[in-house]
Amino acid sequence: MTYTQKSSNALLTDLYQLTMAQAYYLANVTDTEACFHLSFRENPFDGGFAVACGIEQAVDYLESLRFTPAEITYLSTLTGNDARPLFAAEFLDWLSAVDFTWDVDAVLEGTVVFPGEPLVRVKGPIAQCQLVETALLNCVNFQTLVATKAARVCLSAAGDRVIEFGLRRAQGPDGGLSASRAAYVGGCDATSNTLAGLEYGVPVSGTHAHSWVMAFESEIEAFRAYARAVPNNVVFVIDTYDTLQGARNAIEVGRELRELGHELVGVRIDSGDLAWLSKQVRTILDEGGFAGASVVASNELDEHLIESLKIQGAKIDVWGVGTKLATAWDQPALGGVYKLSAIKRPGGAWEPRIKLSEQVAKVTTPGVLGVRRFRDAAGGLLGDMVYDETRTPDAGLVMVDPSDATRRKEFSARDLGTELLSPVFRSGKRVRERLPISESRSHCLSSVGELDPSITRFLNPHTYPVGLERELYELRTTLVLEARGLGAGPAHPPKEEA
Amino acid sequence: MTYTQKSSNALLTDLYQLTMAQAYYLANVTDTEACFHLSFRENPFDGGFAVACGIEQAVDYLESLRFTPAEITYLSTLTGNDARPLFAAEFLDWLSAVDFTWDVDAVLEGTVVFPGEPLVRVKGPIAQCQLVETALLNCVNFQTLVATKAARVCLSAAGDRVIEFGLRRAQGPDGGLSASRAAYVGGCDATSNTLAGLEYGVPVSGTHAHSWVMAFESEIEAFRAYARAVPNNVVFVIDTYDTLQGARNAIEVGRELRELGHELVGVRIDSGDLAWLSKQVRTILDEGGFAGASVVASNELDEHLIESLKIQGAKIDVWGVGTKLATAWDQPALGGVYKLSAIKRPGGAWEPRIKLSEQVAKVTTPGVLGVRRFRDAAGGLLGDMVYDETRTPDAGLVMVDPSDATRRKEFSARDLGTELLSPVFRSGKRVRERLPISESRSHCLSSVGELDPSITRFLNPHTYPVGLERELYELRTTLVLEARGLGAGPAHPPKEEA
Repeated sequence: MTYTQKSSNALLTDLYQLTMAQAYYLANVTDTEACFHLSFRENPFDGGFAVACGIEQAVDYLESLRFTPAEITYLSTLTGNDARPLFAAEFLDWLSAVDFTWDVDAVLEGTVVFPGEPLVRVKGPIAQCQLVETALLNCVNFQTLVATKAARVCLSAAGDRVIEFGLRRAQGPDGGLSASRAAYVGGCDATSNTLAGLEYGVPVSGTHAHSWVMAFESEIEAFRAYARAVPNNVVFVIDTYDTLQGARNAIEVGRELRELGHELVGVRIDSGDLAWLSKQVRTILDEGGFAGASVVASNELDEHLIESLKIQGAKIDVWGVGTKLATAWDQPALGGVYKLSAIKRPGGAWEPRIKLSEQVAKVTTPGVLGVRRFRDAAGGLLGDMVYDETRTPDAGLVMVDPSDATRRKEFSARDLGTELLSPVFRSGKRVRERLPISESRSHCLSSVGELDPSITRFLNPHTYPVGLERELYELRTTLVLEARGLGAGPAHPPKEEA
Repeated sequence: MTYTQKSSNALLTDLYQLTMAQAYYLANVTDTEACFHLSFRENPFDGGFAVACGIEQAVDYLESLRFTPAEITYLSTLTGNDARPLFAAEFLDWLSAVDFTWDVDAVLEGTVVFPGEPLVRVKGPIAQCQLVETALLNCVNFQTLVATKAARVCLSAAGDRVIEFGLRRAQGPDGGLSASRAAYVGGCDATSNTLAGLEYGVPVSGTHAHSWVMAFESEIEAFRAYARAVPNNVVFVIDTYDTLQGARNAIEVGRELRELGHELVGVRIDSGDLAWLSKQVRTILDEGGFAGASVVASNELDEHLIESLKIQGAKIDVWGVGTKLATAWDQPALGGVYKLSAIKRPGGAWEPRIKLSEQVAKVTTPGVLGVRRFRDAAGGLLGDMVYDETRTPDAGLVMVDPSDATRRKEFSARDLGTELLSPVFRSGKRVRERLPISESRSHCLSSVGELDPSITRFLNPHTYPVGLERELYELRTTLVLEARGLGAGPAHPPKEEA
């Protein structure tokens, strides 16, 4: 568990970030500034979009980052291949006193984002920027993945309530806690994870398990005991023995409950043919006078199964989604990267940096980047333009598809462009207030709601237009040509980086 | 991040565990004792075994479990469907003062385990046992999954060093931390996750990233700067521009390093055709006088890719394994369950409980269970027998395959049977000392080492014999027949539970 930890977050990082930081320090290049961007290259789940999440945790991490004496002591015990200390005392002194001075910009949590767009931008002394790579990726990769999965599940549920309950099979205590948070931002209504209620204010939900029924001599006796004990939270699990008989028992106890002035909230089905059973159970409830009681369904659900059940006319009001959501089962990691895109030596200007690859999609975009989202006069989405704010601070009006330069889009000056990145830190000071999680969730719902159904569909979604501002596109092309030896370029053309 | 949490672990649970606990309390059945077992039904990754892990975290959780005033206050704010409190004040008083009195038995971490075997057994007042279900499953499911994946990766590496570095794409901060721990128990040699070094004593490893090379004017300049700064930890990443030229640059700087009295530890290749490149690089290193330098490879590796690279004769000494290991990519959750198997009312004896299912593998095993692992006189594994210690405390000598009752195995009295479960808590007090993580890892290596290659192979592994002790098998059969109405049984035959 995480709660016995001896440390702050500072060591939540790959060791090489620390050895590189030391090398920068000892090589005396601590004054060189760098600009890094966090982005991803492909939408998860073969989908058409992603939902940015984990930003607030990343910001908390940056704000609280400092190395405690226990952490410094631990680092001082590490040795190199000659059994002598890996870290020099003078570097550890620097590390324990370092005053972080980044400028950080980031999208708001809940914003719909696309491949190739910066979600977070970190500018500052190169060692400081390098040091935070792993933790930023860890926070943003996982929560973005789960928020996206949740948004897809909620799209399939088409307005029905969705409850996340993946904790028992989540990837560790915090795998569960982060997942519950991100699932809520992505649109879920509640979680079974009580800690997410306390920590993040996510609404919590739950009644009883099959073991409750098994602990009594009969199902109806178990229902009665539960209803007497917690009369204002009654959703009976009806499939421990026989689902239809369970529904009838639920009604019988529901009537007794009504006499006590309480109402049966619903019943839950956790196994069997959910399409067929839910219709039968709905009929039993309706005919028994419980038209207001919900049918809750669970059992390895995901967006595809929910879509299929909807097509089959299943009578399900509330969807309980667990393992497939909390672990992002069909793609359990987002391949987000954090790439150096510009360098500024003391007294100099920003120099763009590029990294080549045999795959066009893996060629990075140089510069100090922003993203502008354009809408037409009616508010309809037109596309997102990535631009270098040191070259075209107002983003320009023509964008080029980097995978097909003949595809260009010209926006009109009347089109409203809104910036996706906004300042979070300036000179190491937090300048953006924390967004309440309920607002992140609302922002996600409206952001996803703006997308055309062709973008949100699960099968062969349409590609949302994301391009490079024309000058940036041309700069990138020149740098690629130079690096490939087709122009004047650096001695060693960059080739590929994972 | 997890470090800002307001609470202990107590709320790391599904809400329904708390509402059920309240219902037990208010229904006055707190004196009924129960026995629950944590087990799984299928080996992960279509493999032939699993490695138990996360047990020590589960034990820490049980030992530290208590509800803080802040947690109780939070619970008191939750409401039911009538907007009145969900939890009664008298229950919350009980909860904040509850003195846990479980008896808990568990396998040692690192033990090889199989489907249908109890990994953890919890006996005690039913509400107390119910309360801990979610957290136990969360700890054991995920770490068992990753330790098993790590054991498979290490089998494929056939004695080469394996380093885990999945943190940046792990499922949250602790998804990374738990994964690093479990990967080490499963046999990995080190992790990049520095926090796992501090928290758990896992050896840490790492040098520099591509961005280090990109920050300098040329690769060789970058290598020189790194070698000067951290001369006793030099593994150069050589594929930023051109891998073979990178190897030659590494040698050139390696010679300069040697003059300073230090040695080049190795080079890392993170992209491209690892089979071909590793052979070329090996030749360059050998011919350059660096036969002792290791070739480290990484890039979306898993056990299948490593096996394939070995078959191709790749010259790789150290394997860096990230996302595929830390997220258990091809099966990101283990479907472990925690099932009620016996009830003991005040003054009574243990009554077995069974849950049926249409699938034989999902029918639970009733009783208070132990597992005995039999070996022949030469120490060779014969099979594992699950038995009910209230019926046959010495486990018996005949076991039956529950999926085919005609397959039986009789052990000889000379065969050595060792118990897999050992006492961890008695009356709520911890009685088993924490196993140092390095011993869990050694235990795993020897436990996996005992298995026949037919069990450890990746494709169509042989099924290790796990059976039920004959009396237990017969009891289970009788209970199943009764429950299916083919004998005298309970009014509502149990049918299915998820």
